[in-house]
Amino acid sequence: MFKKLKFAVIGAGHGGQGIAGYLAYKGYEVNLYNRSIEKIKKIKQRGTIELVGSIVGFGRLNLVTNSIEQAIKNVDVIMVVLPASAHKFIAKHIAPFVTPEQYIVLNPGRTGGALEFKSIIARHNPLKEVCIVEAQTMLFACRALEQGKVKIFSKKEEVKVAALPAIRNNEFINMIHEVFPEFMPATSVLETSFNNVGALLHPIPTILNCGRIENTKGNFKYYIEGVTPSVAKIIEQVDYERMLVAKALGVKTMSLKEWLAYTYNAYGNTLCEALKNTKGYWGIMAPTNLDTRYIYEDVPQSLVPIWDMAMHLGIQTPTIDSIIHLASILHNADYYKSGRKVIDMGLEGLSVEEIRRFVINGQVSDSRGVVA
Amino acid sequence: MFKKLKFAVIGAGHGGQGIAGYLAYKGYEVNLYNRSIEKIKKIKQRGTIELVGSIVGFGRLNLVTNSIEQAIKNVDVIMVVLPASAHKFIAKHIAPFVTPEQYIVLNPGRTGGALEFKSIIARHNPLKEVCIVEAQTMLFACRALEQGKVKIFSKKEEVKVAALPAIRNNEFINMIHEVFPEFMPATSVLETSFNNVGALLHPIPTILNCGRIENTKGNFKYYIEGVTPSVAKIIEQVDYERMLVAKALGVKTMSLKEWLAYTYNAYGNTLCEALKNTKGYWGIMAPTNLDTRYIYEDVPQSLVPIWDMAMHLGIQTPTIDSIIHLASILHNADYYKSGRKVIDMGLEGLSVEEIRRFVINGQVSDSRGVVA
Repeated sequence: MFKKLKFAVIGAGHGGQGIAGYLAYKGYEVNLYNRSIEKIKKIKQRGTIELVGSIVGFGRLNLVTNSIEQAIKNVDVIMVVLPASAHKFIAKHIAPFVTPEQYIVLNPGRTGGALEFKSIIARHNPLKEVCIVEAQTMLFACRALEQGKVKIFSKKEEVKVAALPAIRNNEFINMIHEVFPEFMPATSVLETSFNNVGALLHPIPTILNCGRIENTKGNFKYYIEGVTPSVAKIIEQVDYERMLVAKALGVKTMSLKEWLAYTYNAYGNTLCEALKNTKGYWGIMAPTNLDTRYIYEDVPQSLVPIWDMAMHLGIQTPTIDSIIHLASILHNADYYKSGRKVIDMGLEGLSVEEIRRFVINGQVSDSRGVVA
Repeated sequence: MFKKLKFAVIGAGHGGQGIAGYLAYKGYEVNLYNRSIEKIKKIKQRGTIELVGSIVGFGRLNLVTNSIEQAIKNVDVIMVVLPASAHKFIAKHIAPFVTPEQYIVLNPGRTGGALEFKSIIARHNPLKEVCIVEAQTMLFACRALEQGKVKIFSKKEEVKVAALPAIRNNEFINMIHEVFPEFMPATSVLETSFNNVGALLHPIPTILNCGRIENTKGNFKYYIEGVTPSVAKIIEQVDYERMLVAKALGVKTMSLKEWLAYTYNAYGNTLCEALKNTKGYWGIMAPTNLDTRYIYEDVPQSLVPIWDMAMHLGIQTPTIDSIIHLASILHNADYYKSGRKVIDMGLEGLSVEEIRRFVINGQVSDSRGVVA
C-alpha cells in the first residue's frame, strides 16, 4: 500500500478551486495557495470547497494560505493552476523552498511552460533537480460560482502530460495514476507544448469577434455562435503553421480537428462542425470584454513561443504574426517583447537535436558527455 | 450659356443607378452602361430611374446598354461607378473608344485608381491623352431597392476630386460645377488615393466582426454596433500607417476622425464616438456574408496599393499587412498578388519627386525636359 499523496494547489481561480476541491473530495490532503489572501478569505473561513455540476460533493482543505513556503511544505505534488502569465512569478517564489523529491505540475503549461519554469528554478537554485511536469490542457472545465463553490462542467477523458526530463515520465505517471488516471504520458514537453490548443481556440475567435464581445458584453456562445466557417479558416491556418513548427522539432502532432475527436469524441466534416459537436463547449459563453486571458495568457504564452521557435528554426508563420500583432494593438502591449521566447525556455542557441536531448534526459550533451 | 453636359454612367449597381438617376432627374442626358444586360433589363424596359429617400423624383435615361462604345459616344463625362476591382476590365474596354476631350471620373478610385486607369489606356491606346479624374469617395450613400428604384440615404457635402494630371483640375471643376458643386479640387490623385477612407472603414470592422456577420447573416448595425473601442483601435493603427505613407509622398493627410468632421460634421472625443455620431451611418447594416466588396474591393484596391507603396518607399506597415493576410485567408485569395500595386499604377522605379511631377503635369521629366 502506498502512502496517501499530499498536494499543494497553487492558484485559487476557477481551475485551482476545481482541482483543490476535487482532490480534497477524493480524500487527499490539500493545501491551497493564492497570492492575494483577499481572494481566498471565504474559502479560509469555510475550510471547504463545494463541487456542483457533473461532480457533486464536498472537500475539506488542510490549509488555505498566501505563504508559498507553507503551502508546499512536505507535499508530494505541487499543482500549479494559474494563467501561464503567472508562471514566471511563481517559479521565482517557489525556487527557494521546493525540494528535489517534489513534482511541480503545470495545469496546463501552455507553450514552453515547463521549460521556462525549470530554467527559472535552475537560475535561482542551481543545485535542485526538480521534476517539472507539463499538462497539455486543463483536466476540468469548471467555473467558481463563488469563493469555495465550483461548478464542474466536464472532465476530459484523457490529458497528455510530460515530465521534464521525459525519462521521469514513468515514475510520475505511476505515482499519480491512483489520483488522475486521465493523465497519459506524452513523448516530451515538446509534445504537450506544441499541441497546446489554447493557442488556437482562445485568441482567434476572441479577436475575430471582438466587435461583438464589446457590443454585447460577450452575450453569445463562444464556440457555437462565435466560431463560424471563416473564423475556423483562420484557426486552421494557425493550426497549420503550429504543426510546421512542431514537425520541425520532431514532435508528433495532432490537428485541432483530430484533437477534438481524441479528447471529446467530437467529429464533423469540417473543423467548424466538429467544434459545434463538442458537447463540453455548448454552454461556454464568450468573455465579457477584451481584457481576457484568452488574449493576455494565450498570446504571450502560447502564440509568441510558437512564433519565436519558428524564428529560431527559420520557419515563416505569417498568420500567427498577424494575430500577435493585432492582439498587441488591442491590449496596448508588445506581446512579441513580453511573451515567452526561446531564450526564456533556456533553449537559445540549441539545435533541434540538442533541444530534443534536453527535453528527454535533461542534458544538452550527448551520451558521450560532450557538451554541445 | 454653356451647352448642357452629356453623361455616360458605367455600372448599374447601387451607386451607378443612384448617380444615373440623379443626373437624369436633374435633366442631363444620361447613357447607362452595364456589362451584363440581365442586370439592367427592367431599367431598359422602364427607361427611368425612380429616386426615393432624401431625394425624391424620376429621371428618364437616354440609353440603357451593354455596349460600352455606344454608351460613351459623344458624351462629355464618363462616370465610372463600379467596385474598383472592375476598373482594369473597364479601362481596357473603354480604351479604343474614348476621345481626348472626354473626362473619365472614377467614383471613387480607391487607391491608385486613376493612375492604373491611365496606365491601361496608355498601353492600349498610346496616342490618347485622356483626363482621368479620381473622386475620393462616393458622393451618395444609396441602395437600389430594385432595378430602376434607388433609395438615397445621404449626399456628402463635399467630395475631393483630382484630375490626372492635376494641371487639368480647374478646367474639370469649372465644367462640372453646375452639376456637382460638391466636387472640390484636391492637390493631386495622390491626395484622393491616400485619403481613401474605405481602406479603413470597410475591411477592418468586417474582419473583426466576421464571426457575427456569418452567425447573424449581418443582422447588426455595421458602424453603430460593429465598431467598438477595440475595433476602432485597429482602425486607428491602420490610419496611422496610411498617413505615414501619405506623408512620405508629400500628401496632405486628414485622419479618419478629421475626415468625419470635415465630411459629415460628425465629432467625438474618440474615433469610435465620432463614428457613432455620423448620422449617415446610422441605418447601415453589416454585409450579410463575407463575400462582400468591403473585402474583395477594399483589400486589393485600397490596402494593397498602400502596402505596396509603403514597400516602394521603405516604410513598415505591419497592421495593414495583418489585415491583408487575414483577408487573403478568408477569401482563399492572394490579395498581395492580385491587388493593385505600384507597377500597375505605372510608377515602378520612380522617386517621390518623379511621382509628384507625374501626378501634377503628367510627365516624369522635370521642367527642363530631362527624362528621369
